[in-house]
Amino acid sequence: MQVIRSIADMRAWRKTAGKIAFVPTMGNLHAGHLALVREAKQRADKVVVSIFVNRLQFGQGEDFDAYPRTYDADAEKLREAGVDALFFPDERELYPRVKQDFNVEPPHVQNELCGAFRPGHFRGVATVVSKLFNIVQPDVACFGKKDYQQLHIIRAMVDDLNMPIEIVPVDTGRADDGLALSSRNGYLTEAERAEAPRLYRNLRRIADALEAGENDYASLEKSAIDDLAANGWQVDYVEVRDADTLEIGHAGAHRLVVLAAARLGKPRLIDNIEVTR
Amino acid sequence: MQVIRSIADMRAWRKTAGKIAFVPTMGNLHAGHLALVREAKQRADKVVVSIFVNRLQFGQGEDFDAYPRTYDADAEKLREAGVDALFFPDERELYPRVKQDFNVEPPHVQNELCGAFRPGHFRGVATVVSKLFNIVQPDVACFGKKDYQQLHIIRAMVDDLNMPIEIVPVDTGRADDGLALSSRNGYLTEAERAEAPRLYRNLRRIADALEAGENDYASLEKSAIDDLAANGWQVDYVEVRDADTLEIGHAGAHRLVVLAAARLGKPRLIDNIEVTR
Repeated sequence: MQVIRSIADMRAWRKTAGKIAFVPTMGNLHAGHLALVREAKQRADKVVVSIFVNRLQFGQGEDFDAYPRTYDADAEKLREAGVDALFFPDERELYPRVKQDFNVEPPHVQNELCGAFRPGHFRGVATVVSKLFNIVQPDVACFGKKDYQQLHIIRAMVDDLNMPIEIVPVDTGRADDGLALSSRNGYLTEAERAEAPRLYRNLRRIADALEAGENDYASLEKSAIDDLAANGWQVDYVEVRDADTLEIGHAGAHRLVVLAAARLGKPRLIDNIEVTR
Repeated sequence: MQVIRSIADMRAWRKTAGKIAFVPTMGNLHAGHLALVREAKQRADKVVVSIFVNRLQFGQGEDFDAYPRTYDADAEKLREAGVDALFFPDERELYPRVKQDFNVEPPHVQNELCGAFRPGHFRGVATVVSKLFNIVQPDVACFGKKDYQQLHIIRAMVDDLNMPIEIVPVDTGRADDGLALSSRNGYLTEAERAEAPRLYRNLRRIADALEAGENDYASLEKSAIDDLAANGWQVDYVEVRDADTLEIGHAGAHRLVVLAAARLGKPRLIDNIEVTR
């Protein structure tokens, strides 16, 4: 596995690499990331993974400084997974003036769901992904459904700005008890970890009701919020949305997604389940 | 010369075209555009010119509907100039939802100079150029210095978003009396056309003074504004700026640019001269 630090080296490597699949990450890799890598390997001649903790997508008071950096373990996992190139750029080269001057500005959906609680987050994501796409120039890029709103925004961005890249969504990896795999799970205490699967259980209960034909989204959302709040969670949102547009799902919609974000102690966990009915 | 209408055909053509130089235009081509084409031919194996009157960069009350569309004459000129491909996209394919959802947002310089008089103009330029870059995927793109602020913003965008494209600036083409070539010159009456070179003469006078060491930019600007106003012009601005940053030039700066925009009757003319001292 080639470890590439500079933009110039990345571009040079890319020129002779054939068809490339790309997996952008912030490191601290778990089995969910490795599922992205496996999918990427099916899609192209060569797989590039990037590790870059992107300051731009963290808000004030968020965990940018504390975000786990585990480069050595990450590189070892990627080597074992058969990744061809690891792009590990220096922040000073990606943001030479510290401030990013040009931003890719997503439409209003950036301010809903997680965006309502993390102002500027999805602008930061769209901008850094654009930069990484322009540097790596992949043919295909894989994103996890765990970050459903992010996946939605990246897909819409690629379409709307005519980027020559195919976006491949990959199913969320889960622990045996249903908890979605996430780098932020590492912040959970033992007691919180035991409680954490309640988020998924509530989403599953809503998804089952939707599949059974329930259309009273508000009361489904409320019962999940109540159950979480009663068990020590601070709930940002539990919402039923249209899976394709992320707009408020209309009664009788066929493709829905149930999304939630809630804090359990310090860590903020997110999860979602797609429903087709 | 291949005339290409669809994004898919453009991408297919691009795959086998080798090194590409790209000249994006809004059509109504004149000798200034053909100078861009000549420069492009020096820089690559194949030259692509696009013709697209971009609704996004016109403000309310601007001349989008009236903007001259002269496709047949344009295509003939490009054929004679040895252009390899003419990309002439359908607006409904570039803006399928009419509204562009994702925009490339330039920094504050977008609201200065021409941007102060054309709100949203440079966002529209940056966004459509990003889209065209993503479709054509050129190695090199040529832009005229006539639209100096546009050139500045495109260069900064390519740098800041790490687009894999070399931007080549091309000198402004001028009529014998100094008037910068522009599609909007076609709007001038005969009397206005005779008056029009006054804009260039004022810029030239300021540039000469700067070259001679003058540092009182405000008084140079004012004397030009006064001369233009006294001769029937409605002046948007005449400004001395730093040529590299487009910020207010400091006294003693070595690389400056004098920029102006003014209306003569209906048409709004812009021009600029770079000064190195």
